[in-house]
Amino acid sequence: MQNLSKEIGKKVRIETIDNEIISGILMPRVELLSEDYVTIKLDNGYNIGVKKSRIKSISIIEDLRKDKLSVELKKPKRKSERKNISILATGGTIASKVDYVTGGVKAAITPEELILSVPEIEDLANISSREIFNKFSENLKPEDWITIAKEIYKEIKKEKPYGVVVTHGTDTMAYTSAALAFMLKTPVPIVLTGAQRSSDRGSSDAALNLIHSIKVALHPSFSEVCVVMHATMSDNFSYIHPATKVRKLHSSRRDAFKTVNAPPLGKVSSGKVEFFQEVKERNEDKLSLDARLDRRVILLKYFPGMEEKLLRFVLNSDYRGLILEGTGLGHVSEDLFKVLDELISSNVIVAMCSQTIYGRVNMNVYSTGRHLLALGVIPCEDMLAETAYVKLMWVLAHTKNPKKIREMMLTPYAREISERSLVL
Amino acid sequence: MQNLSKEIGKKVRIETIDNEIISGILMPRVELLSEDYVTIKLDNGYNIGVKKSRIKSISIIEDLRKDKLSVELKKPKRKSERKNISILATGGTIASKVDYVTGGVKAAITPEELILSVPEIEDLANISSREIFNKFSENLKPEDWITIAKEIYKEIKKEKPYGVVVTHGTDTMAYTSAALAFMLKTPVPIVLTGAQRSSDRGSSDAALNLIHSIKVALHPSFSEVCVVMHATMSDNFSYIHPATKVRKLHSSRRDAFKTVNAPPLGKVSSGKVEFFQEVKERNEDKLSLDARLDRRVILLKYFPGMEEKLLRFVLNSDYRGLILEGTGLGHVSEDLFKVLDELISSNVIVAMCSQTIYGRVNMNVYSTGRHLLALGVIPCEDMLAETAYVKLMWVLAHTKNPKKIREMMLTPYAREISERSLVL
Repeated sequence: MQNLSKEIGKKVRIETIDNEIISGILMPRVELLSEDYVTIKLDNGYNIGVKKSRIKSISIIEDLRKDKLSVELKKPKRKSERKNISILATGGTIASKVDYVTGGVKAAITPEELILSVPEIEDLANISSREIFNKFSENLKPEDWITIAKEIYKEIKKEKPYGVVVTHGTDTMAYTSAALAFMLKTPVPIVLTGAQRSSDRGSSDAALNLIHSIKVALHPSFSEVCVVMHATMSDNFSYIHPATKVRKLHSSRRDAFKTVNAPPLGKVSSGKVEFFQEVKERNEDKLSLDARLDRRVILLKYFPGMEEKLLRFVLNSDYRGLILEGTGLGHVSEDLFKVLDELISSNVIVAMCSQTIYGRVNMNVYSTGRHLLALGVIPCEDMLAETAYVKLMWVLAHTKNPKKIREMMLTPYAREISERSLVL
Repeated sequence: MQNLSKEIGKKVRIETIDNEIISGILMPRVELLSEDYVTIKLDNGYNIGVKKSRIKSISIIEDLRKDKLSVELKKPKRKSERKNISILATGGTIASKVDYVTGGVKAAITPEELILSVPEIEDLANISSREIFNKFSENLKPEDWITIAKEIYKEIKKEKPYGVVVTHGTDTMAYTSAALAFMLKTPVPIVLTGAQRSSDRGSSDAALNLIHSIKVALHPSFSEVCVVMHATMSDNFSYIHPATKVRKLHSSRRDAFKTVNAPPLGKVSSGKVEFFQEVKERNEDKLSLDARLDRRVILLKYFPGMEEKLLRFVLNSDYRGLILEGTGLGHVSEDLFKVLDELISSNVIVAMCSQTIYGRVNMNVYSTGRHLLALGVIPCEDMLAETAYVKLMWVLAHTKNPKKIREMMLTPYAREISERSLVL
């Protein structure tokens, strides 16, 4: 077979000995794959390995590398009749493209490049954009949420945009959106968005998510922190998710984000933004920032066989809070009651969510739950475990009083708990 | 206000000062609730607290305690033209009712009582039943899965039933079903079922789930381990879920169980059992039991801010396996690469699932995933984290060879991995 290393980055067509046709971009060798394979990035964006011994022929269809260099960069022009929208970039797939030379995903699209790749947004608003940092969201830490919150605060205070769009990796976007919702009070919309597929893929959701986010940021009577992402697998509309009740529920689909235990705030289709429920009006809140977090919180999911020693590790570390993802209505094995008692007696706050994701914890129904309540475990209602984890960090930075902590955990600050008609 | 302690267990009607009418069963005082409240169990089964100062009047509607004593127990009769079905009870809501005297849920319905409470099942089959144990499923441990597997094996071997139904608490039923699917090869159907609402509640799903489970156990051409539970919020049909791809996805709804990353095996409506895909025929497998587990496995869900020290606790304990619930396509922060490398170098098996629940891990797309693959993390395809946890315990009890462990983790034994057309 020919020497392929020179052809990396080109679009190729492979015919196999069993007459299968595979076309896609020839990628550099993946570290783990033996030299007996070539790697092809399919049009759907996935990489596959094709055994060299199966290949009958390879032909070059197109040299994509040249096309990629022909994009001309120019600064967008401002028009006075349009509203000003600030895009703050933090990284992630929406700001990345496949690097056809190294084979990795290059997280290096500048905000200017992003605008150039979605020229429609220039007709919607005067866009100014800057990069806060450029990280894949799986690498973000609570400190990064504070940085993002501070930069949004600064942007709104200094630049007075009509709305803010934050581009963000999807992996931990829901953790960040919850953190921002607790930290910021805002007179203008703050919209987080991202992409499940990079913008150079045919199936990319980057453009539509960005356009729809800007439309929400331009809405004349809305001013909450929210997440705007594809609502379906097609390119027809997006949902506006409440920042604290949204979860990534699929690893790859474009409609991965779902509002959990509440309806979405609204939807955006090509024509319009529509709200399903009452939302905060513009300028209803004054701009304020409260970005303190106590990092000493841990999240543990219960599983049958979870041993006391894991909770004893928590007890012997410097943790001040533990979010348990229990089973069903908010349960863990009775084997853990003793160590939970010790944790709570040592002033570690223990709060319960459910690994069922959907539904509300109700720890009054069964003896297990009632026993846990009696120990002092806080039942987090219908809060997502991820949101409860973020919230407990925020609450612990505000008070050391256990009674006040419980009260704050059970008080909705940013839609994180849905009301029910009767509460025990 | 009158002394209510004598009236506990009676159905009451409360009128509040703001003219709200609340009717339900008067419950003993819940430990946590102050004496200013009375507790009422509503018809929908939930307890609510009503502040005494809000109560205008309380009247007794009905004394349920007498009715509950009038059930007459009798042994069901066997008829030769019917097939024999064995019900093995392990506890949980399906085998419980509210104890109107103590206020707790009494996990004490015997199999005979269960049959009496659902008399229809006697027309379907000759039912023989026995109790393996009587536990809420949140208290079950891997040892209990072994006990259940052994008892099912013994039952099929000795009694030769046409099918087996296992009643089980819903909280951890999906963990148990996965364990049974790995441990047992079976010539007859093994159907797990339970109830989200106890059988003395109007909205109970106990009867229909039991009837539908028996219908599946009676099917002439099916012999897998499966879970049969309500498919919708109404009482119209149930799904037959594959044992390893089912998850409890709501804390209280009757349709809480969903098949994840695959279609259900089939459905049961009042009239018939219908399969959506090819299933194992009766007697396709010979009865065999392989109930070894290595308990030294831990499941950890990744969250932003997860610290190295948590994984260092795993490293310093005697664990042999770690299931990580990563973000998105199977990621954790690069901050953890070093300790993961140390874990894998110390022969701890590290395998990756996704906390998105839906979708497949694909660790070739981004540099984070590729780095983790290079460290030796096993990508668990579209396996549920709960199933991967159970499977790794089972695999580790069968081989110490890391290459063989990886191969077994990536080989589907009981539908736990769905096929896709092209795999890297």
